[in-house]
Amino acid sequence: MATENEVLTALQGVTDPELHRSIVDLGMVREIQVQNDRVEFLLALTIPECPLRDQLVAEARAAVERLPGVNSVAVRVGAMSEPERMAALGADAPGAAAGYNRVERIIGVMSGKGGVGKSLVTSLMAVTLARAGQRVGVLDADLTGPSIPKLFGIRGPLSGGPQGIEPAISRGGIKLMSINLLLEEEGQAVIWRGPIISGAIKQFWQDVRWGQLDYLLVDLPPGTSDAALTVMQSLPLRGIVLVTTPQELSTMIVRKAVSMAQTVGVPILGIVENMAGFVAPDTGRRYEIFGPSHADELATAAAAPVLARLALDPELAAMCDAGEIESVMRPEIEGLAQAVLDLMPAPRTEVGV
Amino acid sequence: MATENEVLTALQGVTDPELHRSIVDLGMVREIQVQNDRVEFLLALTIPECPLRDQLVAEARAAVERLPGVNSVAVRVGAMSEPERMAALGADAPGAAAGYNRVERIIGVMSGKGGVGKSLVTSLMAVTLARAGQRVGVLDADLTGPSIPKLFGIRGPLSGGPQGIEPAISRGGIKLMSINLLLEEEGQAVIWRGPIISGAIKQFWQDVRWGQLDYLLVDLPPGTSDAALTVMQSLPLRGIVLVTTPQELSTMIVRKAVSMAQTVGVPILGIVENMAGFVAPDTGRRYEIFGPSHADELATAAAAPVLARLALDPELAAMCDAGEIESVMRPEIEGLAQAVLDLMPAPRTEVGV
Repeated sequence: MATENEVLTALQGVTDPELHRSIVDLGMVREIQVQNDRVEFLLALTIPECPLRDQLVAEARAAVERLPGVNSVAVRVGAMSEPERMAALGADAPGAAAGYNRVERIIGVMSGKGGVGKSLVTSLMAVTLARAGQRVGVLDADLTGPSIPKLFGIRGPLSGGPQGIEPAISRGGIKLMSINLLLEEEGQAVIWRGPIISGAIKQFWQDVRWGQLDYLLVDLPPGTSDAALTVMQSLPLRGIVLVTTPQELSTMIVRKAVSMAQTVGVPILGIVENMAGFVAPDTGRRYEIFGPSHADELATAAAAPVLARLALDPELAAMCDAGEIESVMRPEIEGLAQAVLDLMPAPRTEVGV
Repeated sequence: MATENEVLTALQGVTDPELHRSIVDLGMVREIQVQNDRVEFLLALTIPECPLRDQLVAEARAAVERLPGVNSVAVRVGAMSEPERMAALGADAPGAAAGYNRVERIIGVMSGKGGVGKSLVTSLMAVTLARAGQRVGVLDADLTGPSIPKLFGIRGPLSGGPQGIEPAISRGGIKLMSINLLLEEEGQAVIWRGPIISGAIKQFWQDVRWGQLDYLLVDLPPGTSDAALTVMQSLPLRGIVLVTTPQELSTMIVRKAVSMAQTVGVPILGIVENMAGFVAPDTGRRYEIFGPSHADELATAAAAPVLARLALDPELAAMCDAGEIESVMRPEIEGLAQAVLDLMPAPRTEVGV
């Protein structure tokens, strides 16, 4: 009996005639089922009326039929969803927004660890930079856990045209792009393997009409796998800001992000410590809920300054849930924007797509 | 000039003669650099003295030379690290522990969102099930942010043999496997793309000598991409326990995990709410730091019970950082094990690898 892996390997050699990439890498092969000598799978085409449909089905069928132990192959034909199609098409496209975008500085916000407040820090940096008169965009590169639209109280779906996708614009004038702005329902899962995730991130950079920006902030997902690699290797980053929390466990995993940035050769601009204690609003007493700070150790390991320390704050959490991040006023947060401006004061050469 | 993607696509067709998989999927192709008509890349072999080395280098070179616009190709030859090699070799291996493992129930612990306490909940379930007399193992499927060894105060590196890899054993007799038990330095980043992540997870199931277990708990990484898909599709899960926090933002992303489980067809056994408020140890006053609970809504959406609600607890965080999770005693945590036992009381058919 053939294994699912053998079927995938056989189909790896079948190339989409228009996109010139393997149908496996494009995420077209799904729901492989092997029963004795019978193999069935779904072939999700970029468009259901694909003119090359019959050719592709025949090639896929023939590739699997050549496997030892396979006597019958059933190919069901389906279609990709709109965001999947965009991601597949975008993987190697020249960039619909080419020549239109002029972005001066791209900064990644990363941690390695999930749930430490990357999206919060990205959004607060964006809000305070915009208040300081900068033109700001936020690219949400977390495709499986996108948080940016909710923080800004913005819902999709956005629409795209041949000139590219117009980003959403927040009340404060910040341009936003996130996979959740392309989904019909925000709780819908994006169950994509790495190559499609990478294609979508590249498209969020190349095909979104960002226009003229002083700062584009990229909110990275947790981990040091496909999405982080793609952002670091495919976007012309000035550097990354690392987000951490006091817990030693987080610090250990954020050190993996430091190790990755150093391996890939992306500069670490600074460190933001989030969830740094909780001050009870009634008694004013401070509690180190996640333990004492390790930000200074991390700063030494990363050879970068601590830009800000943000406390746990129920009011801030409530404003995030209400989509009111642009109304947040906190002195330590204003300091964060100043720290970023100080890191990179003068406009340099602009980066076109 | 050729693009990095064109180089990768060209190399996709080159297959490792022993592993019968594309050298790109195996993670062997790295550090691609294109300068005008010159392409350079690193080919990381499974072993430096690979007998088929010259053949593989020649094939890879020829594939890239065929690209339009390429006149010169430099292939540097390197070797994979030990964990990378294991993951690459394991992707299609029959399973060194085949015939040895007898695991009665496999339960995934998932959230979609990072930082909500999946590893904490996984470990507490393991500890309390072990206290209840069950034979328990923990498979840490979070390869880029592995937290399990630190919680149990265990360090590697473990060693493997032809019979498979012996898991680490905690003070309380829990068997543990995590990528951090195979690394020389716990802060080292694992910069792998999806196929290698998937191969490693399969190997943690098939090649680790778990032996006889009543429960194997699988700690999933954040997201709904490769790692989660591999666990759901390649391991015979009884179901998953979802971890959430009160924040609406988390709830929205955990709903994506519900959507994925329903799409893939894995039962949701129950929900654990973590970080559910903070009780000041001196005044006894309770603060809803992340807002009011949304666990009941999520339970309705997932059609599954709320198994436990765990408060934010500085003492617990400190014990986690100290590797003392097996010393934690809390009534609400003991209730969690009982809830899991009640879900699946009777031993059923055992699952061999």
